[in-house]
Amino acid sequence: MNNKIKLYSYYRSSCSYRIRIALYLKKIPFEYIPVHLTKSGGEQNSEEYKKLNPEAQVPCLIHNNQVLTQSMAILQYLDDIYPSPSLFPKDKKAQIISLCEIINSGIQPLQNLKVLKYLKTSYSGRQKEITQWLSFWIQNGLSSVEKKARENKCSPFAIGNSITAAELFIIPQIYNARRFNVNMNNFPKLLEIEELCKHLHPFKKAHPDQQPDSPWQSRKNQ
Amino acid sequence: MNNKIKLYSYYRSSCSYRIRIALYLKKIPFEYIPVHLTKSGGEQNSEEYKKLNPEAQVPCLIHNNQVLTQSMAILQYLDDIYPSPSLFPKDKKAQIISLCEIINSGIQPLQNLKVLKYLKTSYSGRQKEITQWLSFWIQNGLSSVEKKARENKCSPFAIGNSITAAELFIIPQIYNARRFNVNMNNFPKLLEIEELCKHLHPFKKAHPDQQPDSPWQSRKNQ
Repeated sequence: MNNKIKLYSYYRSSCSYRIRIALYLKKIPFEYIPVHLTKSGGEQNSEEYKKLNPEAQVPCLIHNNQVLTQSMAILQYLDDIYPSPSLFPKDKKAQIISLCEIINSGIQPLQNLKVLKYLKTSYSGRQKEITQWLSFWIQNGLSSVEKKARENKCSPFAIGNSITAAELFIIPQIYNARRFNVNMNNFPKLLEIEELCKHLHPFKKAHPDQQPDSPWQSRKNQ
Repeated sequence: MNNKIKLYSYYRSSCSYRIRIALYLKKIPFEYIPVHLTKSGGEQNSEEYKKLNPEAQVPCLIHNNQVLTQSMAILQYLDDIYPSPSLFPKDKKAQIISLCEIINSGIQPLQNLKVLKYLKTSYSGRQKEITQWLSFWIQNGLSSVEKKARENKCSPFAIGNSITAAELFIIPQIYNARRFNVNMNNFPKLLEIEELCKHLHPFKKAHPDQQPDSPWQSRKNQ
């Protein structure tokens, strides 16, 4: 039981969401440990959590006494130890990582909690400017993702003929886009991918609303 | 000769710099094609370049008729086809990717040309606010990198006993930190890594000042 994977996660964190889909897709049992990113200044900033993960972020995955951080690193680790189904099939690996990185380094970092907080407080940002900022960067990045996914004409998936890591980045990013009221109509292929994935068990189980720390679940349990 | 790698690069782009170090480290011959990111609105935004790379960014690497984008994808591709020396040795792979991603998705996206341009023009940013923004995000990210590298007590490198992809992200990020006048004194281990790398041929050859499109080289050739 000591080898059971532990996932430190926040229901609404899109990077944690990626890992949850992977774990359900690969049918890897895991223990879910919620880290509330906004309550009392953010539990990720507590001394206790920073001892575990000095980066003060989620996701953080524990396996065999290893502490793993950063979703791209965690996904490749999981794919190495549980190879099936493959998230980064060899013949498409570079194209998959490239698409994932458009989101991972091109969109998410510009719309995460830390950056929004900084813009609001230290950058004297007004709500209108912040909404424009979010909309600009999400649309800008999703345009590149849409173009890349459209190159895959013979398949409804983003790259190749099956789900890969690409969908694990696309679905949580669409969730964020909707959260920030970004119009998704310019991205028909991504909407097609969303439609396809939303009926699949791993994507349903990994959805923010289904996590034990989501307000939706708390209300159900009251 | 058709299989010779082509690298679309800009001398000062830290993401291109990562790829150049890898190519020299692995002794892979390549053709350097400069893309000027600021001249006449940026050559990366020309219709011709966007036909090749719709993401309108550098680096972009061409090999065997494949167009590869995003430095993390390109580095893993190069490591697969030219395995020696290994940038992501198997036993340390997750830790290496994790460290690289702190820079790739945690620092670089917040201080690249596109974001600085947006802050200056659309976000009514004053120079003082922009300087504070740069300094905050670079120092914040480098603190995490420094902590992670310090865990590797028995070696002067960031992870393990040799150069890995970690140094390919650290050295260009230090170059950027200096460019933006960030005080590096809080990061002694990173300075040690810099001191070690700066005397090595691949790092010297890949340095921005040594590229054909650097103003330094143009002046020498006049």
